Amino acid sequence: MTLLYEGKAKSVFTSDQEDVLRIEYKDEVTAGNGAKKDKMFGKGRLNNLITSKIFGILAQKGIESHFIEQISDTEQLVKAVDIFPLEVVVRNVAAGSICKRLGFEKGHVFKQPLLELFYKNDDLNDPLITDDHVELLELASKEELVEIKEEALKVNKALSTLMDDMNLILVDYKIEFGITKDGQILLADEISPDTCRIWDKDTKENFDKDVYREDTGSLIDTYETFYKKLEEL
Amino acid sequence: MTLLYEGKAKSVFTSDQEDVLRIEYKDEVTAGNGAKKDKMFGKGRLNNLITSKIFGILAQKGIESHFIEQISDTEQLVKAVDIFPLEVVVRNVAAGSICKRLGFEKGHVFKQPLLELFYKNDDLNDPLITDDHVELLELASKEELVEIKEEALKVNKALSTLMDDMNLILVDYKIEFGITKDGQILLADEISPDTCRIWDKDTKENFDKDVYREDTGSLIDTYETFYKKLEEL
Ligand SMILES: Nc1ncnc2c1ncn2[C@@H]1O[C@H](COP(=O)(O)OP(=O)(O)OP(=O)(O)O)[C@@H](O)[C@H]1O
Ligand SMILES: Nc1ncnc2c1ncn2[C@@H]1O[C@H](COP(=O)(O)OP(=O)(O)OP(=O)(O)O)[C@@H](O)[C@H]1O
Ligand SMILES: [Mg+2]
Ligand SMILES: [Mg+2]
Repeated sequence: MTLLYEGKAKSVFTSDQEDVLRIEYKDEVTAGNGAKKDKMFGKGRLNNLITSKIFGILAQKGIESHFIEQISDTEQLVKAVDIFPLEVVVRNVAAGSICKRLGFEKGHVFKQPLLELFYKNDDLNDPLITDDHVELLELASKEELVEIKEEALKVNKALSTLMDDMNLILVDYKIEFGITKDGQILLADEISPDTCRIWDKDTKENFDKDVYREDTGSLIDTYETFYKKLEEL
Repeated sequence: MTLLYEGKAKSVFTSDQEDVLRIEYKDEVTAGNGAKKDKMFGKGRLNNLITSKIFGILAQKGIESHFIEQISDTEQLVKAVDIFPLEVVVRNVAAGSICKRLGFEKGHVFKQPLLELFYKNDDLNDPLITDDHVELLELASKEELVEIKEEALKVNKALSTLMDDMNLILVDYKIEFGITKDGQILLADEISPDTCRIWDKDTKENFDKDVYREDTGSLIDTYETFYKKLEEL
């Protein structure tokens, strides 16, 4: 079982099957592309449980992903894919970088979901890119990009409904897609409070990493509360 | 004749006709959104002459613009338009911001012209935007944007051929579009060494504002040489 990649939040290992990988969720938490960094005991477990649960629910709603099964508190098995170097961001409500970038007020509700693409490249600081850039940089083919975008918006519908059932608002999220050896495009990576912005419908309280980014509360308590809501569904 | 707008490089005045404006080209030169600033005697005249000449040539090639006529060394009359708050950039060769932003090497030849849109908004520092942002911010309608892009690429063909005839390469340029009272979309603003990157085909020497941005030569001499080449056509 070789370590293939050690990321900021997860480690990726081979498994005894060629097309299966083991992902271990770590307790490290970072913000601002690693500018802020800490270790929070229990975070790896929570994000593993939450991601496993969410990918399971999405599968029931007809959205396939790389997720195979949770095998321990901090580990899951997933289908091996080649990740498209794209961070696919979908926004329903303005928060975070788009407010600074384009002047939207925090909380502004977009009249339709806004999909943004970022080039997954730490050296370049994950810059915003257009469809033409994707083509020029050969990050995905035109057809692949169409499928990725359609899938990302399907995820939005499913996840937004899920959050709504929990009296929460899905503000925005970042997902990644990969392609299997036989050419199937799959939702991959994780879906957790690390990669989503989730607000309480009434109080607008955060159930996501913003409590860490903005130092407004305990990350572990917040993720734990979110996980409980998810379990109670 | 009221001053309608005093920009960094030009002043815009009303004229005795309601749908006609007078643009006065100034000697001020700036770079980096005003971070670097100087006065260069004769620059206003050169950019007025060059822009007038280029808009004239484009008209002969079937590309209409706001340009009516040059009325003095530093002034021209143009059709009044509502400017779309978009900087439309077309790139044939990588140089400037795209190298830093996406890691392209300076001089990389794009396999097809790359069109980029920037939100003309000084407070936000003219950020890169996507078609979806244009729609969401209501900067132009979908149909208008299609027309603007088509027109920008027609300009690219015409201008590239023109430069080629002068033994020059059109590396990139920024143009603006506006809409007249009766709804006609027109190429507007200026086309000059301030708004284009132009290289000598053989030596790759700059014939544009990069000599000022990078302090590699006399701006006036450079623009003067470019203007002479244009006159000799
Ligand atoms: N099914 C999969 N097959 C292969 N790689 C995957 C799969 N799912 C996720 N990955 C990749 O595994 C890595 C997980 O690590 P982590 O998310 O901690 O990285 P990171 O520090 O966020 O850096 P980055 O995501 O920018 O690479 C990511 O690079 C992710 O793209
Ligand atoms: N035909 C036209 N009708 C109305 N406005 C025009 C027309 N052509 C150009 N303009 C506008 O006139 C102004 C010219 O001034 P200048 O280019 O010096 O401005 P600037 O300092 O570059 O600032 P900015 O271009 O960001 O407004 C620009 O705002 C430009 O958009
Ligand atoms: Mg990651
Ligand atoms: Mg201008």
